[in-house]
Amino acid sequence: MHREIRIEKYGDAAKLVLRDQRAELQPKPEEVLIDVKYSGVNFADIQMRMGLYPDAPPRPFVPGYEVSGIVEAVGSSVSGLVPGDRVLAGTYFGGYSSKVSVPKNQVFKLPSSFELEKAAALPVSYFTARLALIEMGRVREGDRVLIECATGGVGTIAIQMAKSLGAEVVGLTTTPSKKAYIESYGAQAFTVEELEADPSIARFDFVLNASGGRSISKQLKRLDLTGRIVCMGLNASVGGGRANPLRVLKTVLGTPIFPVLSLMNKNRGVYGLNALRVLEDAEWVERLTKALEADLVRLGLDPHVDRVFPCEEVKDAHLLLENKAAKGKVLIGWS
Amino acid sequence: MHREIRIEKYGDAAKLVLRDQRAELQPKPEEVLIDVKYSGVNFADIQMRMGLYPDAPPRPFVPGYEVSGIVEAVGSSVSGLVPGDRVLAGTYFGGYSSKVSVPKNQVFKLPSSFELEKAAALPVSYFTARLALIEMGRVREGDRVLIECATGGVGTIAIQMAKSLGAEVVGLTTTPSKKAYIESYGAQAFTVEELEADPSIARFDFVLNASGGRSISKQLKRLDLTGRIVCMGLNASVGGGRANPLRVLKTVLGTPIFPVLSLMNKNRGVYGLNALRVLEDAEWVERLTKALEADLVRLGLDPHVDRVFPCEEVKDAHLLLENKAAKGKVLIGWS
Repeated sequence: MHREIRIEKYGDAAKLVLRDQRAELQPKPEEVLIDVKYSGVNFADIQMRMGLYPDAPPRPFVPGYEVSGIVEAVGSSVSGLVPGDRVLAGTYFGGYSSKVSVPKNQVFKLPSSFELEKAAALPVSYFTARLALIEMGRVREGDRVLIECATGGVGTIAIQMAKSLGAEVVGLTTTPSKKAYIESYGAQAFTVEELEADPSIARFDFVLNASGGRSISKQLKRLDLTGRIVCMGLNASVGGGRANPLRVLKTVLGTPIFPVLSLMNKNRGVYGLNALRVLEDAEWVERLTKALEADLVRLGLDPHVDRVFPCEEVKDAHLLLENKAAKGKVLIGWS
Repeated sequence: MHREIRIEKYGDAAKLVLRDQRAELQPKPEEVLIDVKYSGVNFADIQMRMGLYPDAPPRPFVPGYEVSGIVEAVGSSVSGLVPGDRVLAGTYFGGYSSKVSVPKNQVFKLPSSFELEKAAALPVSYFTARLALIEMGRVREGDRVLIECATGGVGTIAIQMAKSLGAEVVGLTTTPSKKAYIESYGAQAFTVEELEADPSIARFDFVLNASGGRSISKQLKRLDLTGRIVCMGLNASVGGGRANPLRVLKTVLGTPIFPVLSLMNKNRGVYGLNALRVLEDAEWVERLTKALEADLVRLGLDPHVDRVFPCEEVKDAHLLLENKAAKGKVLIGWS
């Protein structure tokens, strides 16, 4: 038997349901069966719960993109992993579960010094930060980098990644008290208000935009010639515990439309990033998983876990994240 | 006395006027006076002559962005260059002239083995290719690169640059007979028709788009996830010896508008490049000139000069370029 958290009806966090699953999970030949200890919670899970995520499976379904735990069994053609190994895995849906069976190329064994808790906090944040900074933006030594939402899961890893690439990093937050958190990673910190008031905070080679809407056009002006902005979500449209149709509309309408002709005279670039769409491509999942395994030690990745909620309190985990009260990552713990 | 070619009235190539200038040119303290041997002809000069280039100076003016020649005199604060040195210079307008006086940081001494003719063919092509491939696209080893207009001045240098960066390069041409030229630089060659007929020519990490309009959306589909397209001009709107207002309109209307929301789900990036706008920034001119000096030998840059026209025949130089009959670069020779 195992337990899983399902989205059966769209709505507020109370709609999440914890269910027992009596069916025995068996790994297919290429799969690894994991006894999950921690599941990562992501903003996309909240959008999904609200019915705002077009790529979600039909209800009822189990959300979740990332877990850590102990190998319980391996499929007949899996080598290099044995029961008892401590592992991290990316899961394309299904991660909110006390047991998962996933293809071998989405799993790897953790170094003995790496905590299971931090491991569950890594895949989505690392994949997103890597796609934005390394694959799209190709940040290099000496670049000036601006990270919006610098105190979130992606933002924290993005700062560490940009620093390790030799960039000069500025982190943004809406909350003055979180500036110290950003500074603790060696970045300069500003509030959004401080940035807006000071046009001299500019000449960035790379901007990671997280809130969409009108912030994109504003941040585009802070780019240096030949610079790029990666736009990765619609955080601005979610808040207050439920879908806010007016806010969604405002964000969508505020999201700029760039005629290439005007972009041409600006000598700048715009990328759109939907990391979860990239994870539909098995080749990319394998590539990103291998990169994470290599970078875990090489970059000294150190995700910040804000809080672990027992699976029974998943509602509170969602609320902490959607109220933007979390610093770093929020996890579900299975025990 | 020196001679210069001026745009006095907008119109076809016959409108270019060769004039004698009796005023003696004197270098300012920071300037270098050059006895010009060759001036590069660029597509922007043609757009300017037709009155289609918003950044052009008021008429009458001397167009031209690049020259090579012999140092005749240096300003009082110039060091490192002496009369008699063979040099290359970028000129922000004014290059269609038998003598120019330009700031020292836009000039450098050529290696003795490098021909003056090839030197005048380099600045605009190299600056444009560098901005597109290295500064914006940041092409790296193993990338798949698609170069449109691969037989032109920028295209030829772009292929050499991409190859030297370790990329796998595909060049496009509208003319089947020019495929051998592209292949001679170690790239695969296709005609535009062949590309359109075969959707498997895809998964590019970088596309250099030169013709604008509807070609942008078509080429965007050939990008791999996280790939980028750099759009650098409106060649499609000029042709047949004069401005074609219907063609301009068609190109402008065909140029796509990208809502960031749709770009987000595509996981791709779009850059606009107007290299001449970048050259308004003195810091960038200095940076690009230094890079050209370093890359000249390091990358073994070898621009292809299609033909040199005596200054009296500048009209024919423009016609060759605007009729897309040139392979590589077209120059004006002063003697």
